[in-house]
Amino acid sequence: MSATLETRLGYAPQSAATLAAYLSCIPRVCAILGGDPSAWRIEEVGDGNLNLVFIVKGPMGGVAVKQALPYVRLVGESWPLPLSRAHYEHMALTEQARLTGRLVPEILHYDETLALIVMELLEPHIIMRRGMIAAAVYPKFADDISTFMARTLYFTSDLALTADRKKAMIAAFAGNTALCKITEDLIFTDPYRVAELNRWTSPQLDAYAARWREDGDLKVAVSRLKLKFLSCAEAMLHGDLHTGSIMLTPDDTRVIDPEFAFMGPMGFDAGAIVANFVINYFSHDGHEEAPGARDAYRERVLAMLETIWTSFREKFLDLWRNNATGDAYPTSLFQGVDGEARLEAERQAYMDRLWADTVGFAGAKMIRRILGLAHNIDLELIADKDRRATCEARALTLARDMMVNAGSYRSVADVANAARRLRVEMKSY
Amino acid sequence: MSATLETRLGYAPQSAATLAAYLSCIPRVCAILGGDPSAWRIEEVGDGNLNLVFIVKGPMGGVAVKQALPYVRLVGESWPLPLSRAHYEHMALTEQARLTGRLVPEILHYDETLALIVMELLEPHIIMRRGMIAAAVYPKFADDISTFMARTLYFTSDLALTADRKKAMIAAFAGNTALCKITEDLIFTDPYRVAELNRWTSPQLDAYAARWREDGDLKVAVSRLKLKFLSCAEAMLHGDLHTGSIMLTPDDTRVIDPEFAFMGPMGFDAGAIVANFVINYFSHDGHEEAPGARDAYRERVLAMLETIWTSFREKFLDLWRNNATGDAYPTSLFQGVDGEARLEAERQAYMDRLWADTVGFAGAKMIRRILGLAHNIDLELIADKDRRATCEARALTLARDMMVNAGSYRSVADVANAARRLRVEMKSY
Repeated sequence: MSATLETRLGYAPQSAATLAAYLSCIPRVCAILGGDPSAWRIEEVGDGNLNLVFIVKGPMGGVAVKQALPYVRLVGESWPLPLSRAHYEHMALTEQARLTGRLVPEILHYDETLALIVMELLEPHIIMRRGMIAAAVYPKFADDISTFMARTLYFTSDLALTADRKKAMIAAFAGNTALCKITEDLIFTDPYRVAELNRWTSPQLDAYAARWREDGDLKVAVSRLKLKFLSCAEAMLHGDLHTGSIMLTPDDTRVIDPEFAFMGPMGFDAGAIVANFVINYFSHDGHEEAPGARDAYRERVLAMLETIWTSFREKFLDLWRNNATGDAYPTSLFQGVDGEARLEAERQAYMDRLWADTVGFAGAKMIRRILGLAHNIDLELIADKDRRATCEARALTLARDMMVNAGSYRSVADVANAARRLRVEMKSY
Repeated sequence: MSATLETRLGYAPQSAATLAAYLSCIPRVCAILGGDPSAWRIEEVGDGNLNLVFIVKGPMGGVAVKQALPYVRLVGESWPLPLSRAHYEHMALTEQARLTGRLVPEILHYDETLALIVMELLEPHIIMRRGMIAAAVYPKFADDISTFMARTLYFTSDLALTADRKKAMIAAFAGNTALCKITEDLIFTDPYRVAELNRWTSPQLDAYAARWREDGDLKVAVSRLKLKFLSCAEAMLHGDLHTGSIMLTPDDTRVIDPEFAFMGPMGFDAGAIVANFVINYFSHDGHEEAPGARDAYRERVLAMLETIWTSFREKFLDLWRNNATGDAYPTSLFQGVDGEARLEAERQAYMDRLWADTVGFAGAKMIRRILGLAHNIDLELIADKDRRATCEARALTLARDMMVNAGSYRSVADVANAARRLRVEMKSY
């Protein structure tokens, strides 16, 4: 890994001290914040892995400012990462806003040189992962996220776009290779080999980690998924669609942080949601105050997961039925009652194939959160290592089967039932 | 279809009259031709569908000059086509030369503004299709074309390239949309619907054409292939790899005309070769002077086809075993005797999947040559329409089954055997 940091004329990382002067030159931001810049309170709050994040509050309102650093914040300057990720994030956010409206934060200002985006401040939204760890209820979420997924994936696919517009999008995102490589390495490769960045709950899971590294079927399965990630440009992906990339209240859902966006396989985004719900389901054994105390919430998580997939499927199909403006499956081939019936059967088969992809990608996303570098606080916040390892071993076991036998999970209910079964059958540490 | 022709500052179609002056300013070309430009003989010989082609001969040697026109030559100015195709052809030819050396013509000069490429004159090479119609024998061809396919496909895939280099190639070819659209329309769409450009041997094949347009399973199959063509960027394709894109002698093989090049599914190139061999196999019933006169050649065509695929498969696998420099299937996951054995099994499975793709794409390529706009002279030169339709109906029947039941053709021998069987079983007109 080279340690040469990108430099760019005019780029400088912002601080609370410099940011007020910068923002004071943007009339739209001034109008939101109100008052004099000297009265603005600016706080750096980035708890993510990659970037600076500032919250700026003035007498009238607030904004959020996200700026890329030329390295991975979590690791430091030894791991360079290009500033261009702000460009791709801005491009994806703009497209997502066009397609989903209020399901992403509003962009107020973008500065390509500074790799900096000023956005609407989301208040009192919290990161969904934290809410779910605390067993919070989000009655609107399944509807919102299924809309987000259906609209962003459908409208950037060959079902909606002509080939030339699709290829232009592929080219536009083709340069986001550094971010894609993080995914390629950390999700599809490292957890299955000895790698310095891997970590897991030790010694409890040592045997799992060793077995996973020797599991030929699993390594073939993850390699097929990686190949699909590398070569199948089906639609514009968010690229990191876990519950840490969602800020919400019970009434309002926003998807944030699409800097990993690129044109890839749809199942990767859908799988991220599935993976994070399944992990959260297993994690409550580590959080509940007494055994069974969270039984109702656990079931709510699985019910939500089922609703998300079934709603997504229905919405995607509806978009296809009503907006078949792309070059794939031209409607001119499927005219009349018979033609429409045959096309509808194929639409269902298409969604079945997408579901199989989703199951496999979900498995890969679960394993990387337990054996790889970047873990989920759903599990990490379980202080008792035996309890944590109990949850993790169950998730690992399900994840492996989802990857190796993806086709045997015919519906989202099959995944939910397998999770329930493993939770009962697999003993505690 | 818009009829606005592309204009470009400095572009002008060349003629025999203007070309000598142009070439006389290129020292390398002058050295090859020799003598005074006034002594050069220049002839326009383009019999292809799209471009101007000149053969230029001087006292010492000759060159070929290919220039794009801003429209489809076969159709005329009513069908505009961008000059940029020369850019993509030059880029593909350069890459193919790097990977296969003498299996493509040498580029002597490239003029981006004029959309013009000066190449080595291939003499006494002929277009392979004409040779095969005349039952010519090409003992080196199977070895050469399998090398061409293995090396161009392998080395531009995720098995050989890192993801960033692969994505750079995807972006570099992403603009060749007009040429891709010709394929999308003429191969994957028009033959399955009423379209002005379709034509077929009528009235003999009228019932076939009508049935094919009503065949739901077939239209789903071709639509799945089209989706793969639109969304799976597996490797750099020639994009039009039929026997009309090959010039050869018994001793020397050259693949020409890669203006349809883009990053697409490997089975599309392999399928083009399979399709054209199967069509040629069926066509000899229309060319032989007495029934059975070409039995030996017919079998030679099928034997060559089998050798091409099996050699391609072995060469591709060998490249993979010895040059696994790409990001897919990282060797670090498959260490030791067990790991290597598991990876080798997956390599074989990969080739099986590629074969299934190849069978499907071959079927689509066969049908377009019989029911679509651009036909093969293998069939078109059969003057007797009943005899021609006999050959075509057999090819159509096999092609449909290859598309709808691709998975049932487990090996190239299965395709050869099915062709033999249909030739015997299907009656003549």
